[in-house]
Amino acid sequence: MNSSSPSDRASLPVQTIVPTMADIRAAAARLAPVAVRTPLLEVPALSRRVGGRLLIKAEALQRTGSFKFRGAFNRISLIPAADRPKGVVAFSSGNHAQGVACAAAMLGAPATIVMPSDAPAIKIENTKGYGAKVITYDRLKENREAIGAKLAAETGATLVKPFDDPGLIAGQGTVGLEIAEQCLALGLTPDQVIVPASGGGLLAGVATAVQSIYPNARAIVAEPAGYEDHARSLEAGRRVAINPGASTLCDALMSPEPGEITWAINSRAITGAVAAADPEVAEAMRQAFLHLKLVVEPGGAVGLAAALLGKLPTEGKVTVVVCSGGNVDPELFARILGRAI
Amino acid sequence: MNSSSPSDRASLPVQTIVPTMADIRAAAARLAPVAVRTPLLEVPALSRRVGGRLLIKAEALQRTGSFKFRGAFNRISLIPAADRPKGVVAFSSGNHAQGVACAAAMLGAPATIVMPSDAPAIKIENTKGYGAKVITYDRLKENREAIGAKLAAETGATLVKPFDDPGLIAGQGTVGLEIAEQCLALGLTPDQVIVPASGGGLLAGVATAVQSIYPNARAIVAEPAGYEDHARSLEAGRRVAINPGASTLCDALMSPEPGEITWAINSRAITGAVAAADPEVAEAMRQAFLHLKLVVEPGGAVGLAAALLGKLPTEGKVTVVVCSGGNVDPELFARILGRAI
Repeated sequence: MNSSSPSDRASLPVQTIVPTMADIRAAAARLAPVAVRTPLLEVPALSRRVGGRLLIKAEALQRTGSFKFRGAFNRISLIPAADRPKGVVAFSSGNHAQGVACAAAMLGAPATIVMPSDAPAIKIENTKGYGAKVITYDRLKENREAIGAKLAAETGATLVKPFDDPGLIAGQGTVGLEIAEQCLALGLTPDQVIVPASGGGLLAGVATAVQSIYPNARAIVAEPAGYEDHARSLEAGRRVAINPGASTLCDALMSPEPGEITWAINSRAITGAVAAADPEVAEAMRQAFLHLKLVVEPGGAVGLAAALLGKLPTEGKVTVVVCSGGNVDPELFARILGRAI
Repeated sequence: MNSSSPSDRASLPVQTIVPTMADIRAAAARLAPVAVRTPLLEVPALSRRVGGRLLIKAEALQRTGSFKFRGAFNRISLIPAADRPKGVVAFSSGNHAQGVACAAAMLGAPATIVMPSDAPAIKIENTKGYGAKVITYDRLKENREAIGAKLAAETGATLVKPFDDPGLIAGQGTVGLEIAEQCLALGLTPDQVIVPASGGGLLAGVATAVQSIYPNARAIVAEPAGYEDHARSLEAGRRVAINPGASTLCDALMSPEPGEITWAINSRAITGAVAAADPEVAEAMRQAFLHLKLVVEPGGAVGLAAALLGKLPTEGKVTVVVCSGGNVDPELFARILGRAI
């Protein structure tokens, strides 16, 4: 992983190692044989609705049902071969768990995933289905970071963080590299890229790649209402945490604070923020069903919701939205199709 | 359109002009800037279930929500520029209607689509949404072919048939060309390709392309129970029609008889047939939702149902399935997710 240039580093809030475009290209080469090159979809009905071109990066189609596979595979690839048999440890209640479990199995590293005991059964099952060992903990009484760190220390396993890691961010950045390449093939210059954010790893990677190729492209962060830690941090001019008590459909986007490394990137990259409430997210999921034929989970649809809300200037512009995941329970999806939400 | 070689033609039941690989490659060049290169998806859960590699060609993601756009765009491209302003006419209750309407609009040909008055409102709306003029008819009292032919004769418009046309078949064949290219990139040789069939246009195109590159690949036709006109024709050794009274979820696959040109191709290409009943189709749609994050309509899922039924030899084999469309009403999809079917 390359460090940023000395002049950049001097002005960062902390000395932070951020991934470069070279790291993202290296990740793309590692991922080419194993990841889905997800299509950039466009349908007239949605483009008409925003009065411009609306391009959807269909990352719900990625292996394990979300972009998380990219970062996990790249990060675990960077573990020296001699250390891989000692395994990897991760904590997550959902998409990161599945991404790490799948990537670890493909790379010959035993995986232990620390998951809350009240995580959806389907997510625990899927994670086990990729061959990982799952350790559950009590969300109210125990600290998952401490459990993960203890496991790593005891076994020599490598902790694969959910977002605040340069190797992980470089992997997520391949989403942005593909967007840039696909826009190039279409002869379109993206005016703005809207990316859902929790800790900000996907956004940091996508912004780095897209703005490296299209320097004038705006990066817009999409967050669930009640979890606008990036919007608040932008206002404050520094990384701030929100009070994470709000209820939201977007179970994948409940991080209370931007990451340290991700914020070092995103604080410079982001030029706008939009929050979407549950009914708006549900409507975006219905639009994805009807027009894109894509199953998008709530957290994965918050960017599309942001695009359709009419709060961003989309008239006559090329807007790219990342639909980042599709791991949603059938019961919830059926309720949303039935307009119960 | 090239004719087949003289020796082939002598042995065909009628002198039929069938599209060649060169026609399919020409169609691919026309479609490259406008069609979605749909991904070939694989998930461990489904591959494990068949005991081999199961690759899904996600054609539900195609423009207009089904493969029909490919054939329509290629066919309309072949109309001389001077004749395009006279327009195109098509009859269809669903996916072909939307494919023709969209392609015609892109190619500057006014489109008139003859649809049954009891077609789902959403399909009529979508067809109008692409700018087509919709003429409805009474399914019980009027003949849609006659209405279409009369319109074409009166206006000089070109009739775009739903499946029995070499230019259309060549367009559908680009699905097969992409499958072959994607298998090549994965280093996999397809043992069999399962394709849903109504009139057989998609199957004819896919079989031509895939078997041209992988001559040993088997072509399997998947049909809804009650609409096994291809299976019956294979048994009879000639093109036969079934009695189309059966009820089926697969509204897109209700043609009672293989086409003449498609049968000239498919009678040689097909090496097996599988039928799936409604509950099996519904289960395939749930699997596509859960594991592929793909919205697949009943007719589009019959091939996946065939792969999962256990009637085909899939153990240790590379099986490719085309999921051909995703235009399904939200109410029906919600019922299927809820296991009401």
